[in-house]
This record gives sequence, C-alpha cells and structure tokens, in this order.
Amino acid sequence: MTEISLYSPFPANEVPSWDFETDVVVVGFGAAGACAAIEAADAGAQVMLFERNSGSGGASALSGGEIYIGGGTDVQIAAGFEDTPEELAAYLKAAGGPCADEAKCDLYAQESLSHYAWLKAQGVPYRGNYLPGKHIEPTDDSTLIWSGSEAAAPFCTLARPAPRGHVIQHMGWGGGRPLIDLLETRAREKGVEVIADSRAVALVQEGAAIVGVVVRIDNRTRFVRARKGVVLATGGFVLNEGMRRKYCPQTFRINDPIGDKDDGSGIELGISAGGDAIHMDQFFTTCPWTIPESHAYGVMVNQQGQRFINEDCYHGRVSRAAVDQPGDRVYLLLDSAHFQQPPGFARVAIAGTGEDWEEVERELEMPEGTLSTTMAFYNRHAREGRDPLFDKRTPILTPLDQGPFVALELNFQTSYFSFFTLGGLRTSTDGEVLNRAGTPISGLFAAGRCTSGLPAWGHGYSSGLSLADCTFFGRQAGRKAAGA
Amino acid sequence: MTEISLYSPFPANEVPSWDFETDVVVVGFGAAGACAAIEAADAGAQVMLFERNSGSGGASALSGGEIYIGGGTDVQIAAGFEDTPEELAAYLKAAGGPCADEAKCDLYAQESLSHYAWLKAQGVPYRGNYLPGKHIEPTDDSTLIWSGSEAAAPFCTLARPAPRGHVIQHMGWGGGRPLIDLLETRAREKGVEVIADSRAVALVQEGAAIVGVVVRIDNRTRFVRARKGVVLATGGFVLNEGMRRKYCPQTFRINDPIGDKDDGSGIELGISAGGDAIHMDQFFTTCPWTIPESHAYGVMVNQQGQRFINEDCYHGRVSRAAVDQPGDRVYLLLDSAHFQQPPGFARVAIAGTGEDWEEVERELEMPEGTLSTTMAFYNRHAREGRDPLFDKRTPILTPLDQGPFVALELNFQTSYFSFFTLGGLRTSTDGEVLNRAGTPISGLFAAGRCTSGLPAWGHGYSSGLSLADCTFFGRQAGRKAAGA
Repeated sequence: MTEISLYSPFPANEVPSWDFETDVVVVGFGAAGACAAIEAADAGAQVMLFERNSGSGGASALSGGEIYIGGGTDVQIAAGFEDTPEELAAYLKAAGGPCADEAKCDLYAQESLSHYAWLKAQGVPYRGNYLPGKHIEPTDDSTLIWSGSEAAAPFCTLARPAPRGHVIQHMGWGGGRPLIDLLETRAREKGVEVIADSRAVALVQEGAAIVGVVVRIDNRTRFVRARKGVVLATGGFVLNEGMRRKYCPQTFRINDPIGDKDDGSGIELGISAGGDAIHMDQFFTTCPWTIPESHAYGVMVNQQGQRFINEDCYHGRVSRAAVDQPGDRVYLLLDSAHFQQPPGFARVAIAGTGEDWEEVERELEMPEGTLSTTMAFYNRHAREGRDPLFDKRTPILTPLDQGPFVALELNFQTSYFSFFTLGGLRTSTDGEVLNRAGTPISGLFAAGRCTSGLPAWGHGYSSGLSLADCTFFGRQAGRKAAGA
Repeated sequence: MTEISLYSPFPANEVPSWDFETDVVVVGFGAAGACAAIEAADAGAQVMLFERNSGSGGASALSGGEIYIGGGTDVQIAAGFEDTPEELAAYLKAAGGPCADEAKCDLYAQESLSHYAWLKAQGVPYRGNYLPGKHIEPTDDSTLIWSGSEAAAPFCTLARPAPRGHVIQHMGWGGGRPLIDLLETRAREKGVEVIADSRAVALVQEGAAIVGVVVRIDNRTRFVRARKGVVLATGGFVLNEGMRRKYCPQTFRINDPIGDKDDGSGIELGISAGGDAIHMDQFFTTCPWTIPESHAYGVMVNQQGQRFINEDCYHGRVSRAAVDQPGDRVYLLLDSAHFQQPPGFARVAIAGTGEDWEEVERELEMPEGTLSTTMAFYNRHAREGRDPLFDKRTPILTPLDQGPFVALELNFQTSYFSFFTLGGLRTSTDGEVLNRAGTPISGLFAAGRCTSGLPAWGHGYSSGLSLADCTFFGRQAGRKAAGA
C-alpha cells in the first residue's frame, strides 16, 4: 500500500474502505474552519469537521476576537467616521504591500458590510461604541478601535483614515475564545459533525481531484470521503521549526510564537496536491510596547540611536521594523510625562535613565551625539507639530522633554516579541487551492493562515486582518466547496 | 495521454518511445551544468546535455568568471595571506546568515583547494597575482581580489579575513564567457553530447523515481531516457515575473535583472517531482557604487540622512541594505578628494553639491541637522580611526572633509541595481534534490541557482559565491548522478 504521508496524496483506488462519508470535510476548528463549516452547511452540504485538539479554538481562540471591517458600518457611522468600500480596499492593498492579493482586497472591501451583517446574524454581539486612543485590545467591552496604521503615514495618504477594528462584546482581552465558542455553537446547530482529537495526515486523490482525507483517530487510520470537497483550515507553520528554518528564518531572531498546533500540516497537504505556497518569508510580530497607552507617545531608536519609523504606526508594524534593525534590540524612549511601569509580560526592562537625554545616552553606552541628537531634533520639530524624517503625526507626535527620561530595552531575544507566520497556500477568492499553474485543484479548498490572504505582509499587518481573512474567506471556501 | 507540464511529471509508462537514451541527462549549459556533465563523464557515464539557447552560457557567462576559493591557495600564500578551511567555513556560514546550509559550507571549505586544483586541471588559467584594493572585477587579468565582506564587521570578527575571489586570467571584465567556453570544450572532449535549442518541459517519472525528461526540439516533443539520473542546472527565476511576484516581490523595487532565460523552470520541474524550494525570498543586488574605486571611501545615507551600514562591506551587501531603506533612494556622499565622475552605466546622478555638508543637505532638501549632523559625527570619529555606529574600519574609513562635497543619488527605480534570485531547490551536499520530508528523490539532482546553495542570503552575498556553488556542487551532482 502507498505510504500515508503529508507529502503525497493517497490514491483513492487504494482506500480499503471509507470510514466516513460526507459532502464537505473541513480540517481545523479555528475561525476559518468554523466559518467554512457553517457556510457549507447553510448551502445544504453534509459537513464533517476534523480537529486535532480536543476542542475548537486554534490560534483564533488566542486572539482578541477583533475583526477588520469597514466600508461604513453602523458603529463607524455612529462614531462619525466616513468609510467606503473603496477606501477600505485602498487600505487593504497598502497593508498587503508587495504581497497584496488585489482581488482578495477588492472582494473583501466590497463584501465587508455584508460580512459584518453575517457575523451579527451568527450572534456575534457588538456593543456598538467607539473607543478612542491606542489599544491593542479594549480592556472593557467596547467595539470599535483603531487597529492598524490607518492614521499614520504613508497609509493616511493612500486611504482616508477610519478605525476598522470591530471587537466582539466581551469584557477585557481575549475575545477570540468567546467568538470561536459562538461559531462552534452555530456550526453544531447546523448539523456539522465535529470529530475532535483527529489529525489529518494525507489527502486522498482520484486522478487530479481531491476526494477525501486520511485522519488518525485513537491511533488508528481512518479514511474520510468528501463527495464535494476538502477545506484545509489548519493554521500557519509558526510551531514548525523545520519549516521556519527553510522559509522564514528571520523569525529565529525572536522567541514567542503564537499558535496552537500550527505546524504547517495544511500547507504541506495542499502542496502535496500540487498547491503553491507563497510569501512564506512573511510574518507578523509585535512587542506590546504601547502598553500602557502613554507609551504609544514614545520614540523608538535602534542601537545606533537612530529612529527608523513613524512610531504612530500600528504597534506591530513598528515592532516588525524593529526586528529589521541591526543588533539585538531597540529602545523605547519616554519622558516623565509618559512613562509608567510597563506590564511584566512584555519583559521590557529599563536600560537607562537620565535627567536629560545626554545622560540616557551615556547610560546606554551610546556614543555622544547619537541618541541625544536624535531627541533634540525630534523635540524641536515635535514642538512645531512636524516630523520631517518619518512624518509621525499629532496627537501621537509630542515632545518628550519633561525629565527625568527613560529608555526601555526591547530585546529581540528576551522581550516578548510574539509572532506568527503569514505565508501559505495560494487560493482564489473562492478559497480554491490553486496549483502552480494558477488553476484550481478540483475538490481542494483552504482558508486562514494555511493560506496567504489579506494579512500577506508583515510590515503592513493590522489587528483584525487575520480574523477578517479567516472568517470571510473561510465562508467563501465553505460555500464553494458545498457547490462543487 | 497525460498532459506534458512543468508542474507534474510525465508517467514513464505513457512514453510512446524514447527518442534519446543516455546515463545522465544534464539540463542547462551554464557553469553548473557544464561541471556536472564533465564530472559525470569522468565517472564513466554517458552524458547528454540539453540547453534551451543555441549555445552554452547561461547567467554564468554574464559573470566575471570569479570563483570564491580559499583555505590557503597558492595565490593567497604568495600574497602573504593566511587562510584555512576552518576560516573559510566560518566566513561562508556568516555569509549565509539565517539561510546558511552549514553542511554545504563545511564541505565546500574542506574541498575548496582540491576544487581549485580541479579547475586548473580543466585548464582554467590563473595569472597568480594579488590585486589590492576594492574591485568589482579586475580591469586587467589579475587573479586574487577581495570579493566579499571579509575585512568588514561583523565578518572580520567571525573569520580571519583573507581575499578569496579567484578570477580566471582574462583581460578586463567578463571572464565568465571564457570560463564557460573552456568548460564547454572539456565537456565535449569527454564525449558529452550537447543538444542546443532544446527546452526541458517535463520530467519523466516511474514510481517515485525520475527516469528521464521531456524536451521540445524544433517544435517537437522528444522523450529522453536517463538511465542513472537527471541533473537540473537551469538557473534561477529572475526573469519570471510571476514567480518573483509570488516569492520575491521586493525585487520589484529595482529594475535590472541579470539572467539568460532564468525563468525558474528547473525549480518548477524539481517541485513537480516532490522537491522543496527554500529561501525563495532571497536575492542578490548591487549598484556599482564602488566604481571608480575612490567612491568606495564614500558614506551612504538614506533619505533621512542616516547611515545604515558599514560601507566597507561588499558593495552588494551595502546595496542590498540600501534597498531595505525607506523611500526610493539612498545617497552616496563624497568629498573632492574622492569624487570622480561615475560610470554612465551606473545611472547615478549628482543630486546635490555644496561647499560644506550643510549646503549639500539643503540641496537635497533634507531637514537641517540631518545629513550634516551625520557627516560631522562621522568625520569627527573617522579622524580618530573609529566608526562607533557601524564599525567601518580603516583604510576605507576616512574623513570626508575636503570640500566641495557631492551627493550621488542611487535611485532604486532608475539607477542600475542589478539583481538575481538566490532561492531554489533544497539539495543534499551530493546535489540530490530532497523531497519535502528531506529524503533524496531517486534519479533527480540539481545544482546552481535553481537550488539554494552557498549564496543563500542576499545580505551576505560575496562575488564568486555563486560560481563556487555552481562549479563545485555541479560536480557533486554530476558525480552522484553517474553513480546512481
């Protein structure tokens, strides 16, 4: 018998017997898999969902439950923000940078409002209010926050800024778990059969078409026939060190992967069927340096004492640029008007203090005239409301001139730089896995972080982009699979 | 009949008849293919070489014919440089950065002297002298030049510096063409049958093994049986815009691909057989900013007026870091002691001049106190023989304080930034193409830029690394294929 492997499909004619048969098989029970299952069931398909953990969740459940939505939602309008699908599309393309999938950006922008309505129809609760300021996640149950680089250069010159992070109503951080719980409930109500503790280990192929999946359950091999299609929704490869070494070695500069069994197996399965993995070097990272919020007013310098970005960008964009800097750390500079004790989990330490920036410079053992010159230049222009170097903008742009002063060390190896991978299978806007010639592979679909989607470019990430991608393109994949 | 495609192997049992039969098939007649063919023939195999152009060459023939060799060659010793295989290995690993294939680095370092002897035995002439200074290629027929970042930080702290660029004896630039001519002559002498104007369009597979290749000759499909193995030596994908968009989109910041039909077809063929393409985002680039040589003493700043690297690194490492900078250009700053008219082909223009650096700053419309402060700081420390920011070293480290001064604009879109891709198939040190599980694919070998090899990391490239990789690992692949 042909070996059962992630790396090559198992021939259908060697399947001894089908242990399960259904219309649509979904692999993975995070947000992408849940939405694919719901939509496939709504389209009339019989759906089985296989999840390797004992329950739903995936990396989605580790998130804040924040979804990037725009184009003029009720909450945006109530808060006085104008937004249109065109502006949203423009932002999404800027956020995708050189990796942007323009067709996905356009479709999502066009469908964002109806997707929001769909989420609400599934029962996702939104309080409906706008929370001003810089937040990684609301600490209360607010809905709308600035969750990207919308108001910062160059994004603000490419698309009219509006806040677009829509957070599930949930008190405090961690809205991802209740979001998934709710999607799970909907999926089960619709008759989706969930088989937990089951690991997909191969696809089943008939001719060039995918017709099923091989799973391991209770240490036994089971063959699952998918009459219409298989949807891969298994997440990225952040927990697979071998794949990171081959495709994304820059992530070894940092140490805090966010994932839940994200071992890239879905990407391997897709490739085994002829799929194409793209932008595999891209990753999101962030150090939570904007907590407490007053720290968002800080200035970031590299070990040369030079600024390297407008710090009013999304915290993850700033962090991603930080990881590009020479050496093993950057510094967040604050004055007494803005410094508060950073949270312990950030693992950022005070590396230098001083009555003036010259003293901080000396404490950091930087050469005279580096950091101090940077800060004199910065403060001089900030007083005039300008940042001629990087175009940081008010109100985040503010002089840091009230001593004493402090430099916090954001060390790539020891501070908390969380990360996950963004590269994955190339899919159509309908979630079809495309082969290397760009043609859909019959019977094979994918969504979420085992694909390259809306959050394609590490330097352009914005909170909520991955869940937007997972939920919307998960639905697309489920619906398409059900109609296949 | 199964479709003939780069993307899936053609089944051997559908081959109507073999139009050609041989032991080893080599695809591509650059340096890698030539060396594979020579070595396979020397091992007693019957060899056929298929080349899509009308003659030999590939990107190798566009090169300077410079090969990265060390460990204590006759020329190194005669010139008074100490080098060992261990120091060479350490440099190669540093040059590979996060993408380094340590086994390849170690093997090449260990075998570098014997490889050099082999090249000479093939008739590659070396004048035997050392040419001091900073040269992209010798303008005379000299042999040994500094061709990397050996003497620059951090490389000089990781491996004892020695020049290792060994250039074929050839008057002026362009030693790649005579190098290939010579290898072609050797290959033909050894009975290698060369079929030009033939394009490989599919591999032929029997079970999991590769047993041949499908080629198009005179618009007809021909089936070639390889009794022992197929060696892919088709180059990178720099001329395939679709592949660049999917895997290496940062190259769209620059405009001058170097290649000759480098369309990635060998990478596609390898993947079709289950191969794994790695580090596909990596690319070499250089702007010839060190011509004339006095310009190597210049200082490079980004549009913020900040330095970003020790400019005594290899010109390509500096250029690669330049392309990472914000905006669309960097500036090369020179004083009257070092400025000469740059060569026309570099397409670098004078963007600003001045009697002092403040005036240059104003002409570049940079904010007051940016470039001028950078240069005051640089000059102050250069006078003391120090570069506290980036550890640039003497003698390249020198004050630029003799006015008038000039800033040359290196514009990513309009200046000459040549580039080629470095990502490709993952191979063993014997040139076996590895499948995604890391196991050799029976009958399939690869070498050169359709693989990821010694020059794995764009930021660590050094001249001669690619030809070292092509020639040495081409030989490895040819020998292993002949013994298969």
